[in-house]
Amino acid sequence: MLLAQIHLTLPVWVHDVVDASAVHASDADKVALAITLSKHNIDARTGGPFGAVVFGPTDRVVAIGVNRVLPQNCSLAHAETMAYMLAQQRLQRARLNENADGQRDGRYTLATSAQPCCQCYGATVWAGIDRLLIGARSEDVMELTEFDEGPLPADWVGELNKRGIEVVRDLHRDAARAVLRAYGEQGGDRY
Amino acid sequence: MLLAQIHLTLPVWVHDVVDASAVHASDADKVALAITLSKHNIDARTGGPFGAVVFGPTDRVVAIGVNRVLPQNCSLAHAETMAYMLAQQRLQRARLNENADGQRDGRYTLATSAQPCCQCYGATVWAGIDRLLIGARSEDVMELTEFDEGPLPADWVGELNKRGIEVVRDLHRDAARAVLRAYGEQGGDRY
Repeated sequence: MLLAQIHLTLPVWVHDVVDASAVHASDADKVALAITLSKHNIDARTGGPFGAVVFGPTDRVVAIGVNRVLPQNCSLAHAETMAYMLAQQRLQRARLNENADGQRDGRYTLATSAQPCCQCYGATVWAGIDRLLIGARSEDVMELTEFDEGPLPADWVGELNKRGIEVVRDLHRDAARAVLRAYGEQGGDRY
Repeated sequence: MLLAQIHLTLPVWVHDVVDASAVHASDADKVALAITLSKHNIDARTGGPFGAVVFGPTDRVVAIGVNRVLPQNCSLAHAETMAYMLAQQRLQRARLNENADGQRDGRYTLATSAQPCCQCYGATVWAGIDRLLIGARSEDVMELTEFDEGPLPADWVGELNKRGIEVVRDLHRDAARAVLRAYGEQGGDRY
């Protein structure tokens, strides 16, 4: 039996938490929403303690993602990758900031509750974003949870900068750490 | 409008090309199938020139993947990531070589027609494979196509070895290069 279809979903609660018409003007506002999603995800036990949001040129939500690895048996289903796939599907573009002719068209931002792991780092290179906004640092993730962040290039920020992606860190870092800590205290990664 | 579902598919021709009951005993046999898939994908114009296969403990196909980035508007839909997601869905495990109790259970191999890019490299760290078999090198991809491979850790093989993943390269490299060359001569990446 050869499977030929993949189907991934977000939890149903996302529709109650996210207002797609709201403007999230500042970098901090954007990461705050990603952290809110990470908190809902552990409270509802619908995945790991990570949330991410793609914002478009008008500072409104294009798509959101939360970690769905264990509920959906899919190691690809991290918060950032879910957000990228859903944003690309909504815009019908494989690179968010390029139109069908390969021309730059609009500025897109990913806000994430914690520094992308090695997989989401690589996905960020191809997704077509202009800015990456980060809450918790990878050392916070490794201190407060059992998650490994995986191997990155030594100058991971510089490699993104070279490809036109600006990186801003430590936005609401304490709030992001609090969600990671709460998750660790719940007893780990078995959902 | 907030999207909450992702649906990705393989091309319909895969059912005619892959015999899920066949044994692919050697490393070279395994990569040969991945290269065959990459060739079919460009001949059918169903994606970029990349194929990958997850093999299980009995050397039979668990799942296959081909590049579906442009047909499905999804930068995550590389050959390796499609194969990982489909294999995990079939086995209902987020890590292929771990059972529900987190214990090692079986040895899994990814064979890929070309060296994984930065995204698929990161995905390989989490997918739960024991061996990574590679056809073309990343310099072949960059010489013969317009694809960038992205930033990797300096010792990318060693970082996989440290995590229990063996890497074997240059399997049917010439055949893999021939598919990349044919793709470049077709005129590039616009499908």
